[in-house]
Amino acid sequence: MIFFDNAATGAIKPNCVYEGAINVMKYLSINAGRGSYRLALYADELIYKTRKEICSFFNGYSPERVIFTKNCTEALNVAIFGTLKKGGHVIASAYEHNSVLRPLYNLEDKGLITLTIVKPQNGAVLKEDILNAITPKTYLVCLTGASNVTGEINDYEAIGSLLKQKGILFLVDGAQIAGHAFIDLKEQNIDIFCFSGHKGMDALQGVGCLIFNKELEIKPLTFGGSGSETFSKTPSGYPELLESGTLNLPSIISLFHATVYTKKNFTVKQKLMLELTDYAVKNLKKIKGVKLYSKQNPIGIVALSYNDYYTPEIAGVLGDKFDIATRGGFHCAPLCHELLNTKQNGLLRLSFSWFNDKKEIDYFIEKLLKVPLYVY
Amino acid sequence: MIFFDNAATGAIKPNCVYEGAINVMKYLSINAGRGSYRLALYADELIYKTRKEICSFFNGYSPERVIFTKNCTEALNVAIFGTLKKGGHVIASAYEHNSVLRPLYNLEDKGLITLTIVKPQNGAVLKEDILNAITPKTYLVCLTGASNVTGEINDYEAIGSLLKQKGILFLVDGAQIAGHAFIDLKEQNIDIFCFSGHKGMDALQGVGCLIFNKELEIKPLTFGGSGSETFSKTPSGYPELLESGTLNLPSIISLFHATVYTKKNFTVKQKLMLELTDYAVKNLKKIKGVKLYSKQNPIGIVALSYNDYYTPEIAGVLGDKFDIATRGGFHCAPLCHELLNTKQNGLLRLSFSWFNDKKEIDYFIEKLLKVPLYVY
Repeated sequence: MIFFDNAATGAIKPNCVYEGAINVMKYLSINAGRGSYRLALYADELIYKTRKEICSFFNGYSPERVIFTKNCTEALNVAIFGTLKKGGHVIASAYEHNSVLRPLYNLEDKGLITLTIVKPQNGAVLKEDILNAITPKTYLVCLTGASNVTGEINDYEAIGSLLKQKGILFLVDGAQIAGHAFIDLKEQNIDIFCFSGHKGMDALQGVGCLIFNKELEIKPLTFGGSGSETFSKTPSGYPELLESGTLNLPSIISLFHATVYTKKNFTVKQKLMLELTDYAVKNLKKIKGVKLYSKQNPIGIVALSYNDYYTPEIAGVLGDKFDIATRGGFHCAPLCHELLNTKQNGLLRLSFSWFNDKKEIDYFIEKLLKVPLYVY
Repeated sequence: MIFFDNAATGAIKPNCVYEGAINVMKYLSINAGRGSYRLALYADELIYKTRKEICSFFNGYSPERVIFTKNCTEALNVAIFGTLKKGGHVIASAYEHNSVLRPLYNLEDKGLITLTIVKPQNGAVLKEDILNAITPKTYLVCLTGASNVTGEINDYEAIGSLLKQKGILFLVDGAQIAGHAFIDLKEQNIDIFCFSGHKGMDALQGVGCLIFNKELEIKPLTFGGSGSETFSKTPSGYPELLESGTLNLPSIISLFHATVYTKKNFTVKQKLMLELTDYAVKNLKKIKGVKLYSKQNPIGIVALSYNDYYTPEIAGVLGDKFDIATRGGFHCAPLCHELLNTKQNGLLRLSFSWFNDKKEIDYFIEKLLKVPLYVY
């Protein structure tokens, strides 16, 4: 099988990730933060070490402000609902995923916020686009680090600096940039950063992260046992306040190992993504009927259309007939397709990881050329 | 190490659970419900099989009404917030865990519900206790299947039948009963059932479940990508509506294997729990200074106090000096300790699993007798 759907979930993880998770599954099946016996204390230590490692990798604010969630979607929901200012104004971009848009629509539909969607004119969402959308009531800007459809990177560094001046909260959806693009939360003035473990970070499924600024208060969406302060109505501090219930230790520890691995191999991985997207773009350009929606990028995403085929059908043929995993359709990003005028057929997305190579792209192109034989 | 903290997380899982999860981690790292390639379709099939298996094991309402969450706490929060009737009245018991109490307190503090806590007089929460608390505004009763502190089983069958007559929703927190006590959701008239995978069900961490009645509508707490209906503001059907973001496939599949295993070994496991709790209770009774708060039970829990020691200190000595994992303190169940008058020292809890035996209990008792030597 050729696997080009790594922006959904990375298919192959580094060995250290499997080993770390399997060790915990088998020999440290413990409810962290509860007991005081040897293994429980060890589990607490590993979890703290993971918070510290992640905090350091992204230059976050403090390990206590690294919150483990089940996925990036949960992290984004906690961030959006937990910072709500009733009657306020929120800005998001047309590149946002439904994990940002749907929570915002929910607040808008209830009349709790007003929402402005910024449409980039040509490529990335720029500082100027955001600046023009700011009103006196704007308290939050939600921006994806890169489009999950095209791999287009937004100018979050410049936007972070603008929003800092304006005193507006800046939330970056890092689902596609974590592990791929350079991120320094303090330097880039990102107040809230959400990402998932299982995509570019190369950890297992079952863990996402919410990292946030020390000065910020985020209210919880769920309430439950916290292993401390049993007699109070809610825990008083972070991370406990945002982590009710049993933590998923194997996935969290997989993220520890994945972060160490990613830190070590960041430059190599980034170079490879740039090479593979460049190679794919250059070679796909030559094919009649292919329209490209991506340029070379470190995210590892290349989006395209082919003739007037419905892209889920192309993905179906590639999967069924040639065992090539790609994704057709809309990628949970409705406004992006409106922007790109691809609402009818969607886009075919290739997304690469560290284990992919150019020969696989050659094979893909060879088989793509055969798709017309199968499309009715 | 002797591990008696299985009511928090079962320390050893059946081999089929490890194998099932590891296979998925390594060879099926796929974002289920999204792609159309071979492995993606296989992942979808396994997830549906898991819903079916769980639905059948608990005699639930339909596989589509088996919702995967990250833990039992999330399931309970979704159930409680998602069925809110503003201005209504909710009943819960003094045995509830903070994962039920804290969401309810949150609603009460916001003035959205009124709340009555039923205090059992002597042992289990009985039908009569609930009946007396019902008002014309009561729309929901939340009851733990068994106390996570003492293992006391509530009479959920009789209460289910009462609530059905009255047309009141019945939510059972199954965190401690799933895998231990007989559950038949339809027969026992349980409308909503929440449980965690990693306790009595013997699955891995990272998966909980919410099962609910076909006639019921539960609103989501979080919103995000659902792999379908990209252009609508929320997905229209279950399970998608309550499962936004990437599912944790390894843990979910571990729950499939764990459910098959539990079904096969249910009677043997139940007999063992009854034997171990009986043995522990009988032998602990003989020790001067020990006060028992549990009787024989299929949940596998025995709670006790010893002299006037602070129970986290006892657990500390047992862990540090003798490598015995138990839990002292309050177990996230504040009202239970008020009820039992154990708010000062908490309770020491032993909780057993399928791999424990009587010799370990003997060893525990031998070492418990030495605790006074270490307590200051």
